Amino acid sequence: MGTTPTPPPPNLTKHAKKIEDHLAASINNDNALGAACRYVMGWEDANGKTTDQGGKRIRPALCLYVSELFGGSTANALPGAISLELIHNFSLVHDEIQDRDPERHHRKTIWRLVGEAQAINVGDYLYVLAQKVLIESTIPAEQRILALASLANATGDMIKGQWADLSFENREDITVDEYLEMIEFKTGALIGAAVECGALLAGIPKSEADLGRAWGRRIGLAFQAHDDILGIWGDPNTTGKSNVNDLVRKKKSLPVLEAMKQSDTSAKIKSLYASDKEPSGEEILETVNLMEKRNIREICEEHAERFIKEAEEILEVLPLGVEERARLRQIANYLIKRNA
Amino acid sequence: MGTTPTPPPPNLTKHAKKIEDHLAASINNDNALGAACRYVMGWEDANGKTTDQGGKRIRPALCLYVSELFGGSTANALPGAISLELIHNFSLVHDEIQDRDPERHHRKTIWRLVGEAQAINVGDYLYVLAQKVLIESTIPAEQRILALASLANATGDMIKGQWADLSFENREDITVDEYLEMIEFKTGALIGAAVECGALLAGIPKSEADLGRAWGRRIGLAFQAHDDILGIWGDPNTTGKSNVNDLVRKKKSLPVLEAMKQSDTSAKIKSLYASDKEPSGEEILETVNLMEKRNIREICEEHAERFIKEAEEILEVLPLGVEERARLRQIANYLIKRNA
Repeated sequence: MGTTPTPPPPNLTKHAKKIEDHLAASINNDNALGAACRYVMGWEDANGKTTDQGGKRIRPALCLYVSELFGGSTANALPGAISLELIHNFSLVHDEIQDRDPERHHRKTIWRLVGEAQAINVGDYLYVLAQKVLIESTIPAEQRILALASLANATGDMIKGQWADLSFENREDITVDEYLEMIEFKTGALIGAAVECGALLAGIPKSEADLGRAWGRRIGLAFQAHDDILGIWGDPNTTGKSNVNDLVRKKKSLPVLEAMKQSDTSAKIKSLYASDKEPSGEEILETVNLMEKRNIREICEEHAERFIKEAEEILEVLPLGVEERARLRQIANYLIKRNA
Repeated sequence: MGTTPTPPPPNLTKHAKKIEDHLAASINNDNALGAACRYVMGWEDANGKTTDQGGKRIRPALCLYVSELFGGSTANALPGAISLELIHNFSLVHDEIQDRDPERHHRKTIWRLVGEAQAINVGDYLYVLAQKVLIESTIPAEQRILALASLANATGDMIKGQWADLSFENREDITVDEYLEMIEFKTGALIGAAVECGALLAGIPKSEADLGRAWGRRIGLAFQAHDDILGIWGDPNTTGKSNVNDLVRKKKSLPVLEAMKQSDTSAKIKSLYASDKEPSGEEILETVNLMEKRNIREICEEHAERFIKEAEEILEVLPLGVEERARLRQIANYLIKRNA
């Protein structure tokens, strides 16, 4: 594990400036609510001073690149791309309130700045802006409707996933299958929609865009499985997350659920999670070592590889040339293997 | 003040069953998230048992009736009507979390049943369903886009209004003008959209639907001004609200802001609101009596009458016959004068 994040491939960054400019134009609100949105997007600090701390904008970049691979224009795909990123940030803002996350990428979360009540409004407003950017765009009405439908379905699934995730907190008997369904909804749905919207806005028939969505959802699953592995074995300096290890936060992530299937790792984690106090570094290390001994990391990597294989099978039937498929594979590889 | 709420005029109730049926069909989710939505809509109690405690569905009824007055079909206007009611409930769910409201119409608010974190998801999900019901409808794509635009604009304004409302809690210097702008956004916007969508879905040109929206926003303002008057002078048995008087909740409503302009009423309210303990019934009565002596009720009624006069001026230029205008006036009259 290195300490420098893997840089995204050029095809995911070439429209970075255009994405930021159009995101900024979508938040044309001078008041305090607009300032809160700009803070969330990483353009302003808590005092309204300009900063440059936006996220990687993976979803809009993926949407634009998929559209390009299908022969579409960037201009036509942009409203879908911008909408995706606004929806992603709406979900982050509400998740942060729900999880009481103190930080995102070393910055205070918005609810700590404006309070939980107003932060609910910030998330709601970002979601409204996500609607407006597509509705008010000049792309053909039928395409707008298709993209809006794709995003509404994905957002509905995402919220169902978030509902399931929170409901798991009070349960001791979550199965790996339930967990994988939850992350397909919570994480996979919007990545699937990024691919689907890219295809739809390139004018690809709905049935083929559906395959694109299915591919994206498998990639999203693999991405989250890998993220869960990083949550136990990742380098905190690289991932930029404020919490050192998912075991400290008592998260029921994929490695933990797999560990619950074996008697000694299960006993170890149960005693760790039953305690009221934060586990020591030594206890965490002991648990991680035992998990490694029981091949938990490999088991989780097998899940990720299975999702990649399923994605590969879908890729084969997508109406793309050999070259375009190779490029999508390269993007998927970055998303899954990225260490940040 | 009577103890029986004024019944809505028949034109606002004739499609009640159709509205409930289509609302129910829009929430086709068997899991716990769906159950939470059905609780919010008033169809189920906390144990999932069937109840019949839905709201008055004023916004969808208004949308359908406006569409009818403009010569449109109920079938074509229904998706807009259903979307309006889902958006209204999304906003209620988030407001109740933000305001820590314990009850709505004598029922526990949803956040008290599922917790604040999950209640955020319930609101979000209702808003997604509001999108889907319009996006997936079979009405012409251009009309769907127009209705979606109307609702997205109104929802954006509603959230701006809610942001302003919450920000007023920490301020002592709110002007009546600021307050009226806030309620135009928070309450007027969605009533305006009900009228606008009804007109648009009847196939009326955008410019004329805009006038309909302007009319609805003035009616919404009058409605809220009247609601604020009821908050001080209304009969709690009739309005069904859990708190006896807005003065007990230390709300900065229109009568309070008008009272702040006069030295003796201002001093009285300041001392009432500065105290940590709940004011006694006697203190409330004294304050209300002093407000009456200073004509605060009349001043607030003058605001409401001004909004009605402005609405009337807009009504005159709407492309409707004398009969249709009279019917809209009757609806407006019910909304403003209703004591529930």
